[in-house]
Amino acid sequence: MKVLWVLAHPEPRSLNGALKDAGVAALERAGHEVVVSDLHAMAWNPVVTAADYGHDPDERFRVGPVSAQARAAGTLSADVRAEQDKVAAADTLVVQFPLWWYGMPAILKGWFDRVFLKGFAYGVVDPDHPGRTLRYGEGPLAGKRALVLTTVGGRGPDLGPRGVHGHLEELLFPLQHGTLFYVGYEVLPPVVVTGANRVSDDEFATAARELRERVLAVPHTTPLPFRRQNGGDYDDDLVLRDHLAPGRAGLGIHRRDRPTETER
Amino acid sequence: MKVLWVLAHPEPRSLNGALKDAGVAALERAGHEVVVSDLHAMAWNPVVTAADYGHDPDERFRVGPVSAQARAAGTLSADVRAEQDKVAAADTLVVQFPLWWYGMPAILKGWFDRVFLKGFAYGVVDPDHPGRTLRYGEGPLAGKRALVLTTVGGRGPDLGPRGVHGHLEELLFPLQHGTLFYVGYEVLPPVVVTGANRVSDDEFATAARELRERVLAVPHTTPLPFRRQNGGDYDDDLVLRDHLAPGRAGLGIHRRDRPTETER
Repeated sequence: MKVLWVLAHPEPRSLNGALKDAGVAALERAGHEVVVSDLHAMAWNPVVTAADYGHDPDERFRVGPVSAQARAAGTLSADVRAEQDKVAAADTLVVQFPLWWYGMPAILKGWFDRVFLKGFAYGVVDPDHPGRTLRYGEGPLAGKRALVLTTVGGRGPDLGPRGVHGHLEELLFPLQHGTLFYVGYEVLPPVVVTGANRVSDDEFATAARELRERVLAVPHTTPLPFRRQNGGDYDDDLVLRDHLAPGRAGLGIHRRDRPTETER
Repeated sequence: MKVLWVLAHPEPRSLNGALKDAGVAALERAGHEVVVSDLHAMAWNPVVTAADYGHDPDERFRVGPVSAQARAAGTLSADVRAEQDKVAAADTLVVQFPLWWYGMPAILKGWFDRVFLKGFAYGVVDPDHPGRTLRYGEGPLAGKRALVLTTVGGRGPDLGPRGVHGHLEELLFPLQHGTLFYVGYEVLPPVVVTGANRVSDDEFATAARELRERVLAVPHTTPLPFRRQNGGDYDDDLVLRDHLAPGRAGLGIHRRDRPTETER
């Protein structure tokens, strides 16, 4: 594998830092290539501004078109181009972060905001079907695999299917489905480390072992079975057809294997 | 009302800029006080670093405890304190942003990451029940109301209950439930402007009118009926009790009014 490992944690001497070291070491020992984007260490700028695109400040800044134009013209800022090159060169993306306010830390959200630009990660039209945008299972980054690794303070049940915080797999839907699957990645089940504020040595050893197994197993792990946009499951308004998960709603219906959990 | 209006858009000459102007003007005409935090105009830093807390770089940086300690000691960075003061002084919070990758732009996520700190927005223990943390309906900011205003590129059905992107109300769950309701806000139904990439003058007039009505109606709008953590609906593991929404899962079960949508 050629792995891009994106880490968002401000402290290398943290659980997240130690997990990253364990995962990267396991991959490298097995002969895989790993490039790490340690966003805090890089002092990554997560804020989208017109300056990213060499945009004339007298003109109104329309983020989508302006960024696509800058990409085509080669005037993207160098830090964004460098990350796009890493994404393009890797067949596997690992996205690692502590769950803050039930989502990614800002520095990581802004990595997607600035790097996953129109023309690179989305907004590409199917050459065989003009008018049909390639996304959700067939975006520009199709053929690559992604794995989310997150640490959470909760003990587990509170992030389970009926836990007070909401089911973690649904909290991760904007990232795993709306971002990674959208642009083409096959998204693997996430690695979740619970009780992250108070991990004992034994618990760390267990978590590191699971992580090593999971990263080495990336090529032969079954991805999350999200429905493809253009696979026939959605109608022309992009609404799930009536005969699929009939009468039901909720994020779970966008998985092909989850008819029962939301149905009764 | 005393309103804090937090805006995250890089371009004042945008749909978002115009909507903010319309909403603020309506509030001020009606005699309400409005403070605007225009995050791009303020060059807001969204990245959590040890420097926010005057932390000794030789010591391991544990985000939660270190930030709580800095708050207690009065050593928080001045920009964070200024935003906390605005939050504390307002009875109403408006959170406005374009939906990017099905969530907040990084600059706004980092406003919550840096401002909603332990001791200020969470981590306060119930004085009457030591060991019980006040959150989800009774956090430190209880008594205030919050309204989310977001603009989306989709036409509407694609973000509806069975739309391909996932139901917008569930995509907003980490913000509306996991953040705003968590810290104590009563969260009102969001204002959503669809087709935001191509709004006609008529469509803008309609959106601005709806926004004016919604912001003026904040004091007497029925909040989203999220379940309170300590209201008896959750067991000691913080899992929804079996007799509520029995046999069901999904984010919808954490609303008291949504037994049917996920049930059949």
